[in-house]
Amino acid sequence: MPKTVFHVDQSKSMRDQEVPGHNRWHPDIPVATRVRPGEEFRVECRDWTDAQIGNNDSANDVRDVDLTLCHMLSGPIGVEGAEPGDLLVVDILDLGPVPQEVGPAPGQGWGYTGIFAKVNGGGFLTDYFPDAYKAIWDLHGHETTSRHIPGVRYTGITHPGLIGTAPSAELLAKWNERERALIEQDPQRVPPLALPPVEDGVLAGKLTGSELQKVAREGARTVPARENGGNQDIKNLTAGSRIFFPVFVPEAKLSMGDLHFSQGDGEISFCGAIEIGGYIDLGVDLIKGGMETYGVTTNPLFMPGRMEPRYTEFLTFIGVSVQHEENRNFYLDATLAYRRACLNAIEYLKKFGYTGEQAYLLLGSAPIEGRISGIVDIPNACCSLYLPVAVFDFDVRPSVQGPVVADRGMQAVAA
Amino acid sequence: MPKTVFHVDQSKSMRDQEVPGHNRWHPDIPVATRVRPGEEFRVECRDWTDAQIGNNDSANDVRDVDLTLCHMLSGPIGVEGAEPGDLLVVDILDLGPVPQEVGPAPGQGWGYTGIFAKVNGGGFLTDYFPDAYKAIWDLHGHETTSRHIPGVRYTGITHPGLIGTAPSAELLAKWNERERALIEQDPQRVPPLALPPVEDGVLAGKLTGSELQKVAREGARTVPARENGGNQDIKNLTAGSRIFFPVFVPEAKLSMGDLHFSQGDGEISFCGAIEIGGYIDLGVDLIKGGMETYGVTTNPLFMPGRMEPRYTEFLTFIGVSVQHEENRNFYLDATLAYRRACLNAIEYLKKFGYTGEQAYLLLGSAPIEGRISGIVDIPNACCSLYLPVAVFDFDVRPSVQGPVVADRGMQAVAA
Amino acid sequence: MPKTVFHVDQSKSMRDQEVPGHNRWHPDIPVATRVRPGEEFRVECRDWTDAQIGNNDSANDVRDVDLTLCHMLSGPIGVEGAEPGDLLVVDILDLGPVPQEVGPAPGQGWGYTGIFAKVNGGGFLTDYFPDAYKAIWDLHGHETTSRHIPGVRYTGITHPGLIGTAPSAELLAKWNERERALIEQDPQRVPPLALPPVEDGVLAGKLTGSELQKVAREGARTVPARENGGNQDIKNLTAGSRIFFPVFVPEAKLSMGDLHFSQGDGEISFCGAIEIGGYIDLGVDLIKGGMETYGVTTNPLFMPGRMEPRYTEFLTFIGVSVQHEENRNFYLDATLAYRRACLNAIEYLKKFGYTGEQAYLLLGSAPIEGRISGIVDIPNACCSLYLPVAVFDFDVRPSVQGPVVADRGMQAVAA
Amino acid sequence: MPKTVFHVDQSKSMRDQEVPGHNRWHPDIPVATRVRPGEEFRVECRDWTDAQIGNNDSANDVRDVDLTLCHMLSGPIGVEGAEPGDLLVVDILDLGPVPQEVGPAPGQGWGYTGIFAKVNGGGFLTDYFPDAYKAIWDLHGHETTSRHIPGVRYTGITHPGLIGTAPSAELLAKWNERERALIEQDPQRVPPLALPPVEDGVLAGKLTGSELQKVAREGARTVPARENGGNQDIKNLTAGSRIFFPVFVPEAKLSMGDLHFSQGDGEISFCGAIEIGGYIDLGVDLIKGGMETYGVTTNPLFMPGRMEPRYTEFLTFIGVSVQHEENRNFYLDATLAYRRACLNAIEYLKKFGYTGEQAYLLLGSAPIEGRISGIVDIPNACCSLYLPVAVFDFDVRPSVQGPVVADRGMQAVAA
Repeated sequence: MPKTVFHVDQSKSMRDQEVPGHNRWHPDIPVATRVRPGEEFRVECRDWTDAQIGNNDSANDVRDVDLTLCHMLSGPIGVEGAEPGDLLVVDILDLGPVPQEVGPAPGQGWGYTGIFAKVNGGGFLTDYFPDAYKAIWDLHGHETTSRHIPGVRYTGITHPGLIGTAPSAELLAKWNERERALIEQDPQRVPPLALPPVEDGVLAGKLTGSELQKVAREGARTVPARENGGNQDIKNLTAGSRIFFPVFVPEAKLSMGDLHFSQGDGEISFCGAIEIGGYIDLGVDLIKGGMETYGVTTNPLFMPGRMEPRYTEFLTFIGVSVQHEENRNFYLDATLAYRRACLNAIEYLKKFGYTGEQAYLLLGSAPIEGRISGIVDIPNACCSLYLPVAVFDFDVRPSVQGPVVADRGMQAVAA
Repeated sequence: MPKTVFHVDQSKSMRDQEVPGHNRWHPDIPVATRVRPGEEFRVECRDWTDAQIGNNDSANDVRDVDLTLCHMLSGPIGVEGAEPGDLLVVDILDLGPVPQEVGPAPGQGWGYTGIFAKVNGGGFLTDYFPDAYKAIWDLHGHETTSRHIPGVRYTGITHPGLIGTAPSAELLAKWNERERALIEQDPQRVPPLALPPVEDGVLAGKLTGSELQKVAREGARTVPARENGGNQDIKNLTAGSRIFFPVFVPEAKLSMGDLHFSQGDGEISFCGAIEIGGYIDLGVDLIKGGMETYGVTTNPLFMPGRMEPRYTEFLTFIGVSVQHEENRNFYLDATLAYRRACLNAIEYLKKFGYTGEQAYLLLGSAPIEGRISGIVDIPNACCSLYLPVAVFDFDVRPSVQGPVVADRGMQAVAA
Repeated sequence: MPKTVFHVDQSKSMRDQEVPGHNRWHPDIPVATRVRPGEEFRVECRDWTDAQIGNNDSANDVRDVDLTLCHMLSGPIGVEGAEPGDLLVVDILDLGPVPQEVGPAPGQGWGYTGIFAKVNGGGFLTDYFPDAYKAIWDLHGHETTSRHIPGVRYTGITHPGLIGTAPSAELLAKWNERERALIEQDPQRVPPLALPPVEDGVLAGKLTGSELQKVAREGARTVPARENGGNQDIKNLTAGSRIFFPVFVPEAKLSMGDLHFSQGDGEISFCGAIEIGGYIDLGVDLIKGGMETYGVTTNPLFMPGRMEPRYTEFLTFIGVSVQHEENRNFYLDATLAYRRACLNAIEYLKKFGYTGEQAYLLLGSAPIEGRISGIVDIPNACCSLYLPVAVFDFDVRPSVQGPVVADRGMQAVAA
Repeated sequence: MPKTVFHVDQSKSMRDQEVPGHNRWHPDIPVATRVRPGEEFRVECRDWTDAQIGNNDSANDVRDVDLTLCHMLSGPIGVEGAEPGDLLVVDILDLGPVPQEVGPAPGQGWGYTGIFAKVNGGGFLTDYFPDAYKAIWDLHGHETTSRHIPGVRYTGITHPGLIGTAPSAELLAKWNERERALIEQDPQRVPPLALPPVEDGVLAGKLTGSELQKVAREGARTVPARENGGNQDIKNLTAGSRIFFPVFVPEAKLSMGDLHFSQGDGEISFCGAIEIGGYIDLGVDLIKGGMETYGVTTNPLFMPGRMEPRYTEFLTFIGVSVQHEENRNFYLDATLAYRRACLNAIEYLKKFGYTGEQAYLLLGSAPIEGRISGIVDIPNACCSLYLPVAVFDFDVRPSVQGPVVADRGMQAVAA
């Protein structure tokens, strides 16, 4: 079992740990610890909100969450010998919720899924579900159940929502430039088009004073995936995966967090995964000069592990890039097509007795597949959503008998 | 073995068959044959271009293809008792290329993949690959190889690219209205935003005269997926799949064609599948009133079959919604994110000795997975492309040794 | 599509084909046709009994079957350049029932599973089920149902029950010697310990007269698997498989037959597969001197294909090497342990309303897994039988509600 | 995370734990702790030998192991309300090696595989490999490597080798009777046919004096699988599995141990798994009267979990029930057939540079499949062994180029 190189006491905020983490991307954030190529080690993580969400039946905490604190990351881990242009090889050896602890922090035996309010970031279906909701999940080894979504039990597809290397100053400047330009297209939009640097809530390890100020002013928010990996929300980064990250700064400065006990493709309700704190065991290595050797100019690449839960019987919903309510057509818009597939799945599940919100929370968290199906057949993109039927303890397939309707309870709502 | 209800002689055009098929969607196209719920039957199909493409080493035919003839469909099959509001249950029992024939028509022992020229429809990467190219594939049972892309052999994921029910007159009117509105946003665009009805090349079974004229003027082009299913290009509609189609007209009027020996998610080069003529064996049934019962208001739903080829080791490429060349950011644009993932895969494969065009042709045709990974993390959508490593007869994984570079031949080009 | 090198007219006995096959293993049986390494070709096959069994509701034909005619094989195929000591590489490209024909021969739209009577060969559970029974299966593409076993529908795992190369004269002599020695241990046993050469019913291609006499006197019966492959009944030899056969005679002389639409591990009722006639498409190649190079001294080896039906949820029955009725223990006897696992599965299925015979017929034909679990824990071998739960159209899993009992009909019985 | 109900301090023998476990099956062994149906809990385990084997390069400890101490089990766990005739439902929620500890006890970051000497129990191939050997495995999350078998790295299929309920006095008497009868068939055999009760080394929780004496005289050895489950060595009892155990005594008295980080079917070298101490998280429930309801008269049944490592490309070796060295035939002997398949695999791997012992150790520990293929085709049983090719870091498939021979080191040997 590997030694722990980044410790987290789940009873304390990330700010109050002996070695605190960070919540912005910036090359100046100092390494929290160093490892060598070939080494294996454990990193402990807080949940992405630093435990702002509680194990209760009210969604007030989801409604009121302070996003300037997010994502609360562990790291950076310096990798000796890593230089810009290398590929950093990262093996995810194992990961999971906080071991052998029951408590009030996410990951201590439980996790949560939230639908964010439109005024606070929204989500993929925010025009249809503008308010805040929540589901609490109990963890049973690799499986999970929720008192807020009865009738389902499934095997989690556990992964880090966020993992990445630090940007160089040049790369960071490009990020800020292009995201600022996007925001300026509609600066008052709710939810916003992108999130600019913000000084509130910033944490940058042990940095203080003017050094911290610099990170606060320039540091990229951690919400999107970018060239460094980051918040990719790729559910298939399960144990056994090997990731190849581009290296932009000396020592690579690998950081991670936002652990997900499970998540469907797209993490559609923004906080759609089962969010947990926990641990992640890693091995690292280097391919010197690998970015040029393998033509990796932008994003990481990876090989998924062998330990994904095996679901093979699916009910698949389809969507095309048409806004049906207004009979309006969009050009090869895969985002819209996938949104329609999600809405079609929700309408279907409502016929079995679930609320739309329950279905939305389920589709974000269960191991569903979201696929690009047709992307060239003008004008309609076509996307499909694969829902494993074994997730349900009743038969969810269409039949001449019709759906088994039942009282299926209720998600947590805001007061 | 089921009886054949729609016959195709592969030595003749679809126009010259005893009972011809059709190449537009219109409720007035008469049924070619009738079946009863519970019945199993075979339908024979031409390739989607009606055999405009040849088994040779020139891409001139791809460059010059006449798209007004496409897609050449078999049907409509009338299903007795089907009424608007029902769900038509369609079991894909089996399908494949033209049985036991070797010849000049696609599907007679071979298939093709094309990159369409930008001036003739283009494709997903048309700004990067504006010209016409082609690869010919030899079929070996369930596997395939190409003289134009040496070093690969894979198991096809055979499916109908296009299958659907007929629209009602009202639904057809909605299609024409919304697609016309889209075209008007940029009527001169190359390639166009959508394809309006066109009289050239129309075929509507045995209709002639003013009845044919009506179909020619109003009939929807078959290129996009729509509420009736249609050209969904869902690679997972393999043998064993069960599809639930909305019924919009009496007798449902099921049509199909555009058989694919194999295709990756997205069929990215527009003609990216391995295109074949062949046969498809179906069973049909009805869920009366099923659209309302199951909340199916727009698209079909389906359950994939158990016979998909098993690939489990993948190399995964990632893309985000950034136009990196111009450092320009787009808002949660999954289409762009998937395009970037495709470009990243192509750059990678070029390091092994393939041309970009070969890689593009391969990604369209091999059983790759294209997934929506992050769709809420503003501003960047994140998509991922899963390439099965067993497709290659060399080790395509990254390593410290670097890629195995070799002369890997050449795709077919236009003169 | 490959050319057919061995033709079968399903309306005629194998004896009356233009080029007849054979039903004994002997090096002197002349090649029926020749192929070259690298070639792909089709072979047509009769069912293993040469159509002694009919599509009806009586098991009299199973009871009265003449086993001296079995297995009726297609071949031998001579492979140019093959020499003793080589490995013959055989790719199973595709296979299936008789294409596009409905008729009275097995494989013409239907197949059968039989329980043989103890007096006529018996089966794995013959002490428990000594009489003859039958189930007829209708084929629906890759799936099958039986009027004799309602409530099940499954995807076949289609494979040749029997495929192998010809023995040399020396190897044949060894077979005859060791099997004769075994028979002599209990010559009157019913069923017998092994089957010696028998002149009745022999067929050896076009051989006649003294040459045929020689084959009749010496030719090994085709029932067991031996060094040449033969009747291995390996259900995983599905399309896409590559087999490496030892070569014992010049030209290898490959023969095959006994096609199975589906079969569970063990083919437990002797005629436990869904027996069909049909076709098999093959490719061949050679590894010169491969037996020595790869240490292949006895049996073939193979790589399974990618197209096996995907079942992942199983109910698993266990057995150990104890004769529980008499509380008698056997030493690491995997045969007995697997028999007990089969009996345990049958007792379980009877609780849902099936007869023991129906359950027995089902376990032989459905894609069940039979595994060696413990083979060293003295004195008990432990074997396990994995039954895919999706085979049933009701929930077959144990629960506090108890089994869903129903009238589940009846297998075909002998008059 | 469940509470721990059975604690083990890995620095102490099982005898010296606060609540010791046991190493015999006997109804009088008192419960160590009690749980209620519906409860989830953790049990900690020693490796099966109570840490007689060390992390070093000598097999002396394997040669000299004291088997009277084995298997050292945790439990019995009493389940409130369980009565004879019930089915005890046991969910394996999670399991693994000793968490976060590095040390000298098996499971503290490492595990071992042993070939037992013929004079000390032997193994499946003891006539071919009569001496003691060992391999040490380092654990990397879900994967493992061995300095004694370089060139392989694989994902473990972690499971309890041994788990079962207590026998009733009547059942225990039947075991002793039938095993004694077996031993009497050849009392001097080496290795013995079965292991009778033995007083040396007995441990029965806190029992002492005459109560302990009774257990010592009557208690069944834990080596074989029996009606209560026990040492079934079923590699597929991975996390997510649900087992249904027959209940023979009040409170069921569930015990477990012999955790395996990984094991191939058959655990062929007797100590063929990667043996570890560690933890197992369980949930329990009851189906009252379930033995009668579901016809469970002898062995447990189970449903495998969804988290088995996904290997899909295999090299398969075949064996039939012939002793080839003497050309001697056995009647449908699956044990012999599987032994031949193992020997064929070993001969093959030797061609790549492994010693026979390394290959033997690998086949016992890696996630290989061992299948009953033909069990009715008189006189030859046919078994097959599926070796995942991805286990190796070189290409292990047969080809015209021949095997990649290399110096592949050496297993640990006895001095």
